[in-house]
Amino acid sequence: MAAAAGAASAAAAPATSQDPMNALRAAALRRSAPHWCAAAAAAASFFSPPFRPRRCRFRRAPAPVAAARTPRSRASAKARAKLLAEAEPRDPWLASLSLLPTDDGAAAAAAAAAAPTGWAIGVDPDTGGAIAVLSPDGSSQVFDNPFVHIVVSEVIRKRLDTKSIIQLLRGLKAPPGTTAYIEKSSPFPTDGKLGWWSTGFSYGLWIASLVSSGFSVVPVASQTWKAYFGLSRSESPKDDSRQAASILFPDKVLSLKLKKHHGRAEALLLAAYGKGLMLPSGKFSKTPT
Amino acid sequence: MAAAAGAASAAAAPATSQDPMNALRAAALRRSAPHWCAAAAAAASFFSPPFRPRRCRFRRAPAPVAAARTPRSRASAKARAKLLAEAEPRDPWLASLSLLPTDDGAAAAAAAAAAPTGWAIGVDPDTGGAIAVLSPDGSSQVFDNPFVHIVVSEVIRKRLDTKSIIQLLRGLKAPPGTTAYIEKSSPFPTDGKLGWWSTGFSYGLWIASLVSSGFSVVPVASQTWKAYFGLSRSESPKDDSRQAASILFPDKVLSLKLKKHHGRAEALLLAAYGKGLMLPSGKFSKTPT
Repeated sequence: MAAAAGAASAAAAPATSQDPMNALRAAALRRSAPHWCAAAAAAASFFSPPFRPRRCRFRRAPAPVAAARTPRSRASAKARAKLLAEAEPRDPWLASLSLLPTDDGAAAAAAAAAAPTGWAIGVDPDTGGAIAVLSPDGSSQVFDNPFVHIVVSEVIRKRLDTKSIIQLLRGLKAPPGTTAYIEKSSPFPTDGKLGWWSTGFSYGLWIASLVSSGFSVVPVASQTWKAYFGLSRSESPKDDSRQAASILFPDKVLSLKLKKHHGRAEALLLAAYGKGLMLPSGKFSKTPT
Repeated sequence: MAAAAGAASAAAAPATSQDPMNALRAAALRRSAPHWCAAAAAAASFFSPPFRPRRCRFRRAPAPVAAARTPRSRASAKARAKLLAEAEPRDPWLASLSLLPTDDGAAAAAAAAAAPTGWAIGVDPDTGGAIAVLSPDGSSQVFDNPFVHIVVSEVIRKRLDTKSIIQLLRGLKAPPGTTAYIEKSSPFPTDGKLGWWSTGFSYGLWIASLVSSGFSVVPVASQTWKAYFGLSRSESPKDDSRQAASILFPDKVLSLKLKKHHGRAEALLLAAYGKGLMLPSGKFSKTPT
C-alpha cells in the first residue's frame, strides 16, 4: 500500500492523472491529417488492431509525455474541457462514450472542472477479465468480472453478469466523471464467429455499463499500454503483466499469484497507464523462456 | 391513438400485460426437463436460433394463453414474484438481466408488487433498429436507434451511440421495473466475423443500457413474435411487419411508410407481443409476391 502510494507519487502528476488521456484524445483529433485519417483514429479507438487502416500511421504519445505537456489543476481542467469541446465534433464516437456535456462549451468546462482527479479505472472486458480502481491516495482495488454459466449446444460457456457488473460499478467510490480505460476489443482473426460475437458482446456490455454509471470511457489498444510499460514482444506476456502489476501494486501480489490472474494484472496496468504511473527503472525484467 | 387504445383494450389483459412473459420464463424453467435442456432454454433466451440445441424441443406458449393462465393484479404480482424467485436460481442468465431483487423472496415480492403494469418496451438492437414504448393508456412511442458514423478501413460504418441511448432511456416515462422485450441477437451464419462482432456489440450495449436504466430485459427470438402475429414464413417479412404494426398502431402509419422503417415496426411488434396485443382477425393479409 505504502509502496503503491510511493509509485503513485513517483508518477509525473498524480494530481492531474486523468488529463493525459483526454489531452491525448483531443490532441490526436486536432492533428492536421486527412479527414479519413482523423476518423480512423476514432475507428482505432473503437476497433482492434486487425481493423485499423494500414495506410493511416496514427501514433499516440505515451501518457507521461502528454502529462508533461498538460497544464495542471483548475487551468488544466478548463483546458481539457476546451480540447474536448473542440475534439467532440470531429469524433462523435469518443463523445458517445461519456455522459459529460459536450454540446455547450461552458457546461463542458464546468463538468470538466468538477471532474475528479487522481482516480482511474481499468477494465479488461472479457469474461476472464477484471476491473481495477486506483484512488488518489495510491490505494487500489481489483475485482474479477462477474459472470454466469450458460449452456449452448450442450457446451457450458461463461457470459458476463450484467446485474452484478452494474451493482459493482455503483458500489465503487470513484466519483462520476472518472475515466475508465478499457482494453480495445481485439478478437483474434483465428477465432471463430462465436468468439467474435462474444468479444463484441462483452465490449458493448462493459461500455454501456460504465457510461451509464457516469464514467467516461477511453478505449486503449493492448499494444499501447504494453509498449508504455515495456511489455511489447514478450515471450510470456501474461506472466510479465502479472510481474509488472505486482511491482506497481505490491499489496496485490497475493491477488496476482496464479497464471489465471493475468486479467487482474491487465486491468491494474490499464488503470496505471491511464493514471500515468511508471515502473521503477531496473526493477522489471521480462520472464525468461 | 383512439384506435390504438382500442387495440389495447382488445388485448386479453392490458392491466396484467407484463405478467405473461414473466410467468412464461418462470414456468419454462419449472418444467421437468433434463438439466441441460432447462439450461438450454436459458441459452435459447440468450442466443439466436443457430445456437439453439437441436435436441432440446423447448417451446414457449404464445403470450395470450399465458395471460389466460395468469392471475390478475396484486395476487398476480405476488404469484409472479414467487415464480421469479423460484426460477432465478435455475436461470442465472435471465436473473442477470434485471436489477429486481431475487435473493430475497419478500424483497422480490415487494419489487414485483411495485412493478408497473400496462407498460412494455420493445427493442430491435441493431444500428438500423428502433425502440418502442407502449403505455397503459394504449398510446405508443417509437424512436430510431441513435448511432454515430465511424470510418473503419476507409469504409464508413454505423455504431450505436451509447450516450444518446442512455439519455433516451432516462427520458422515457416508463417506470423502473418495466419489461423490455429485446430481439435475440441472431447474426446470419453467412455474415462475416465483423458482422458477428457488431451484432454482439449492439446486443450487449442495449442490454446493459436497459438493465442499468432499471428495466427488466426479456430476450425474444424473432420467430417467436413472428409466429405469434402469424408473420412466419413470409415472402416479404419486413413489409408484413410494417403492415401488422400499422394495423396495431394506426397513429404510427406515417412513421412506418418507408421500407427502411421495418426496424420501427419490429420494435413496436416486440412490445405488442410482450403486452399481449393481438391483430384484429381478418384485417391482416401477407404481402403478395
